[in-house]
Amino acid sequence: MSEVLNVTSELAKTSLFASLQPDALEQFASQADVKTFDKGSIFFLHEDKADWFYVIVSGWVKLFRETLEGHEAVIDVLSEGHVFGDSAVLTDDIHTNSAAAAEKTTVIRIPVSFLKRAIDGNHDMALAMLKSLASHRKQQTREIEGLTLQSASQRIGCFLLRLCNDVEQTDIDLKLPYDKSLIAARLGMKPETFSRALNKLRQETNIAVKGNCATIPDVQNLTSFACGACSNEFPCETL
Amino acid sequence: MSEVLNVTSELAKTSLFASLQPDALEQFASQADVKTFDKGSIFFLHEDKADWFYVIVSGWVKLFRETLEGHEAVIDVLSEGHVFGDSAVLTDDIHTNSAAAAEKTTVIRIPVSFLKRAIDGNHDMALAMLKSLASHRKQQTREIEGLTLQSASQRIGCFLLRLCNDVEQTDIDLKLPYDKSLIAARLGMKPETFSRALNKLRQETNIAVKGNCATIPDVQNLTSFACGACSNEFPCETL
Repeated sequence: MSEVLNVTSELAKTSLFASLQPDALEQFASQADVKTFDKGSIFFLHEDKADWFYVIVSGWVKLFRETLEGHEAVIDVLSEGHVFGDSAVLTDDIHTNSAAAAEKTTVIRIPVSFLKRAIDGNHDMALAMLKSLASHRKQQTREIEGLTLQSASQRIGCFLLRLCNDVEQTDIDLKLPYDKSLIAARLGMKPETFSRALNKLRQETNIAVKGNCATIPDVQNLTSFACGACSNEFPCETL
Repeated sequence: MSEVLNVTSELAKTSLFASLQPDALEQFASQADVKTFDKGSIFFLHEDKADWFYVIVSGWVKLFRETLEGHEAVIDVLSEGHVFGDSAVLTDDIHTNSAAAAEKTTVIRIPVSFLKRAIDGNHDMALAMLKSLASHRKQQTREIEGLTLQSASQRIGCFLLRLCNDVEQTDIDLKLPYDKSLIAARLGMKPETFSRALNKLRQETNIAVKGNCATIPDVQNLTSFACGACSNEFPCETL
């Protein structure tokens, strides 16, 4: 894959690099290499010294933290075009969470030290990093809101709605982006809570989930059920 | 209060402004005014156009969002030396949550447009804003982790531990920083959940809570109970 991949254009797809001038982008590309990781591979662990940050080309990456008792809190699950590990430049080069490949994943990796020098020396890069962090903050605020006020069934409904194209309204068939146990963890639920909540959601909204496919007969039914416990109206602007 | 307050030195206490040169700080101070708000006053609402951002001089400020059904998710509760409303410069001048005075609160307010120009024109200001956002991100990640994996009793225990001086180990008397209904909301619990969880915490760790005072007979007892479901060890570095 690394032979055919245009690293510069992959970087330009990310919110972090999209606003950079071509020559600045080329400089990042010159520092980059492309690597493919098997499912389960660890990119880094919480509190590791940060040598690299990563741009996802394909696959899924799970960001998580492990408690002292060994349980895992999934902070986020990221796909193509997302950057991770970059915020270590702002936390003394220490990663503030762990990251693992949730399936076979190809990434571009770039030294954290290079990003750090770019932010320190290039105002546009600092502004781009600010925009990127602000969008993360907005998303995390929504996350906290959801964990605080949405029921487990509503959180699953919300997750499905975010996969919908907002133009279609009836008989939508969706492919779940990753397996149900990871979806449960991503939504902050134990597997048994997820099963119960999904059953309730089925009864309330007539959705069907079979294997990794979901069918939503009526989006409005689902929004009536899920969106009342949220401050945003559907369609929401961020995934 | 406004007559005796040294605005420049108040600004210098915040993480956002602490690294700025004195002349840059003076420029912010020249744009600022000081205002006192009664308990319950609204500074701004979610999705309001952002005219001002605020630095807390005294009192407590609640950041929240309201769901379409009218329930309130408390995102954070901030005290003296904290800045709020500032991240609107990065979200098209729109506030991404609401803010209200949780008790009588004195603030310094500064036009958002002035901060925006400073970030666009001054590299040091952009770096300071980056540091501030990064610290918020770290705190919000911890918040998501706690909401995902800690039990209600553990979240209360964690809240109390964050009020402790890490040097003392036994017979600590604490004053709760704000009233119990707001603590419950801050921890993402309904009042009845909070009561039940507090009772459980009392039984498990022998803490006592009476009015707005808490007594912790043995910190180690409390950390054994609360910190196992967290990725940080006590004492934790952030409030």
